[in-house]
Amino acid sequence: MKEAQKNSNNYYEQLNDLRQSIGQLDEDLLRIFAERRKLSLKVANNKLATGKKVRDQAQEKNLLSNLTKKGQALGIEPSVTLSLFHNIIEDSVRSQYDFFLENCAQESLEPLTLAVLGEPDSYSHIAAQQHFATKKRRFTPEFCPNFLSIFKSIDAKRADIGIVPIENTTAGNITEVYDLLLQYQLKIVGEEKLKVKHCLVAPKGASLETIKDVYSHPQAIAQCKAFFNQHPHINSHFRSSTSSALKLVAEYQNPSIAAIASEQAAESSGLEVLSYAINNYQENYTRFLLIANQEVNVPNAVPAKTTLTLQTSQQPGALLDCLQVFKSHGINMTKLESRPIPTKPWQELFYIDFEGNANEINIKTAISELKTVATEVTVLGTYPLHDILATKLDHHALSNQLNKL
Amino acid sequence: MKEAQKNSNNYYEQLNDLRQSIGQLDEDLLRIFAERRKLSLKVANNKLATGKKVRDQAQEKNLLSNLTKKGQALGIEPSVTLSLFHNIIEDSVRSQYDFFLENCAQESLEPLTLAVLGEPDSYSHIAAQQHFATKKRRFTPEFCPNFLSIFKSIDAKRADIGIVPIENTTAGNITEVYDLLLQYQLKIVGEEKLKVKHCLVAPKGASLETIKDVYSHPQAIAQCKAFFNQHPHINSHFRSSTSSALKLVAEYQNPSIAAIASEQAAESSGLEVLSYAINNYQENYTRFLLIANQEVNVPNAVPAKTTLTLQTSQQPGALLDCLQVFKSHGINMTKLESRPIPTKPWQELFYIDFEGNANEINIKTAISELKTVATEVTVLGTYPLHDILATKLDHHALSNQLNKL
Repeated sequence: MKEAQKNSNNYYEQLNDLRQSIGQLDEDLLRIFAERRKLSLKVANNKLATGKKVRDQAQEKNLLSNLTKKGQALGIEPSVTLSLFHNIIEDSVRSQYDFFLENCAQESLEPLTLAVLGEPDSYSHIAAQQHFATKKRRFTPEFCPNFLSIFKSIDAKRADIGIVPIENTTAGNITEVYDLLLQYQLKIVGEEKLKVKHCLVAPKGASLETIKDVYSHPQAIAQCKAFFNQHPHINSHFRSSTSSALKLVAEYQNPSIAAIASEQAAESSGLEVLSYAINNYQENYTRFLLIANQEVNVPNAVPAKTTLTLQTSQQPGALLDCLQVFKSHGINMTKLESRPIPTKPWQELFYIDFEGNANEINIKTAISELKTVATEVTVLGTYPLHDILATKLDHHALSNQLNKL
Repeated sequence: MKEAQKNSNNYYEQLNDLRQSIGQLDEDLLRIFAERRKLSLKVANNKLATGKKVRDQAQEKNLLSNLTKKGQALGIEPSVTLSLFHNIIEDSVRSQYDFFLENCAQESLEPLTLAVLGEPDSYSHIAAQQHFATKKRRFTPEFCPNFLSIFKSIDAKRADIGIVPIENTTAGNITEVYDLLLQYQLKIVGEEKLKVKHCLVAPKGASLETIKDVYSHPQAIAQCKAFFNQHPHINSHFRSSTSSALKLVAEYQNPSIAAIASEQAAESSGLEVLSYAINNYQENYTRFLLIANQEVNVPNAVPAKTTLTLQTSQQPGALLDCLQVFKSHGINMTKLESRPIPTKPWQELFYIDFEGNANEINIKTAISELKTVATEVTVLGTYPLHDILATKLDHHALSNQLNKL
């Protein structure tokens, strides 16, 4: 055997050995992580018994500060340690929230019927799967051809719950859903956020040159505007959902016709992905609302968000008076959206999201104050806050550790 | 001692015990993670010796698929296992890239002088800290009052390298920097992405009611448009940087004057944060370019991005001919931006970012073909790709594991 060949075999063996050792360490990591999750549920049980809040950020701060120091002694940069443990703590906090919600609601574990737009693997369906992935309760999807039929299905009690997109970071608000929320007066019982990647999907044999017409939901097309600007020979056409666009393309099997849809949906349609992530911005998120006939009970230990609508008189400053109520109670408003009222021309309806639970005394007081300055106030629901913000260490304490100058 | 008191003490002790056990597990996790990182560098060394690419996504796929199965046996949902290990693999891939770059460039480890906008803790400074956090090479900042002075400082060789923002997901491109890139013909040697959270910062004693005037960089103000819409009594004013705005507010100490800046900068200014994250969208990212006089050598084992400018004749279809060259070579274009040419009215200059290394044969061929259809082609630089995309498992394999129906 030649020397070079021997060396190459040695390297090959070494790489295999290293990979095996890494695989072993990964299994150790996973095992310890599983143990940590069990202890975290015991902590949740303890907090439930003593009426404590789920989140204790002072405790998290201690933990993270200690770990970044220990990490540095092991040669791990603080930013890397923080990123790893933010991930672990987020999972732990989310599991504890779910534990509280399940124990307080004492819900049945019967599968829910969930009204959802499109076909299997539509973005709404993926968002629903993501929402229920870590929950005990399962769901059976009822696929609906448009937003209106989702609201009708819940209203008629054919479905227990529904999921609808409400805003997208690139294309803005989905005003149709806002208007249906007002019309049907369903309760908002949850929220979910999905990172959206739009793929250009076509039959086998098609290429970017052969494509002339692209079908999709108007929102998806709006989020891919830059793609259409760059390919002026390609025309866009609206369909009621990305799933129905995909169906059309799968039926025609014409190399000039493509759809915009998720990779997951492309996989099940038997079509090919010509281009991944053609959205204008890589960071493209859609926020979904879960809606139902009955409100959900969010225990006070779990951070909550509330959505309400308000109508003000046409007096100048009426909206400012309302916003003043939020300020004076120290309530953090996360969204303010105005919509015209179809039956009352030139009057505006405001949708307001804020952090807090409609059962808390402070929020109750604020809402009754609002009722004295607004002509109509309707609470659409209190639901668990989706985002779990990472606990931050003081930047300067950290940058002293980081300081390389 | 009463029974209730005893119970409460028991709960308190139990919580402490649980937290201590969790702390112990976290240290174990960190220790194993540190061992894994050492092995990962040995893998990088092995790959460097055998000329392999850093990333082996087939290998990652095996690893992830195995771990999600092992995780499920331990009661961990696949999405949770994937999220944990995507984080760990991203760190490992980034460390291996840095190892290749350091070993191929054989750079000195002398600290770099880095020209950066504003004052300590400006967004650009934070982006630079983030960029160099995991790198061996350190930097000394040279703070510049505006973008032009950054370019001048590098051009005059006072600074070795500079960092400039080039685009923001909410407010769009920073055209001034595009134009300076053309004017100074510096080389792009790297990119960085920073998640931006704009805080409203004011002197102690100020409140949202007392604020009348807010100072900041025009980009920051554009990214907080919704805040100004919601607070019509507050006026916005431009300053050349968020740092200079902060300085002004710190000097005046007037409860009617506030600035928009990062939390980190607010902390060092001694001012107070009145509102966290007042940007229109929570997902608000700025992409920065690192620029220098000399190009950087990116080894082929590390994924790279190249930026070039091209000018086309005014014949119709000239740009399409150029784009056709990218397509025919299978090159993935990640950005196309057009700018007018100051000296040639009605002619357009195009900035194109694509994945690939200007040293690769395929890219070299494409660039020489471009030169036959465009009137001018200038490569601004090849630099390591910032994003490390997570290796995905097949959705359907995963959803069979996930299936709850």
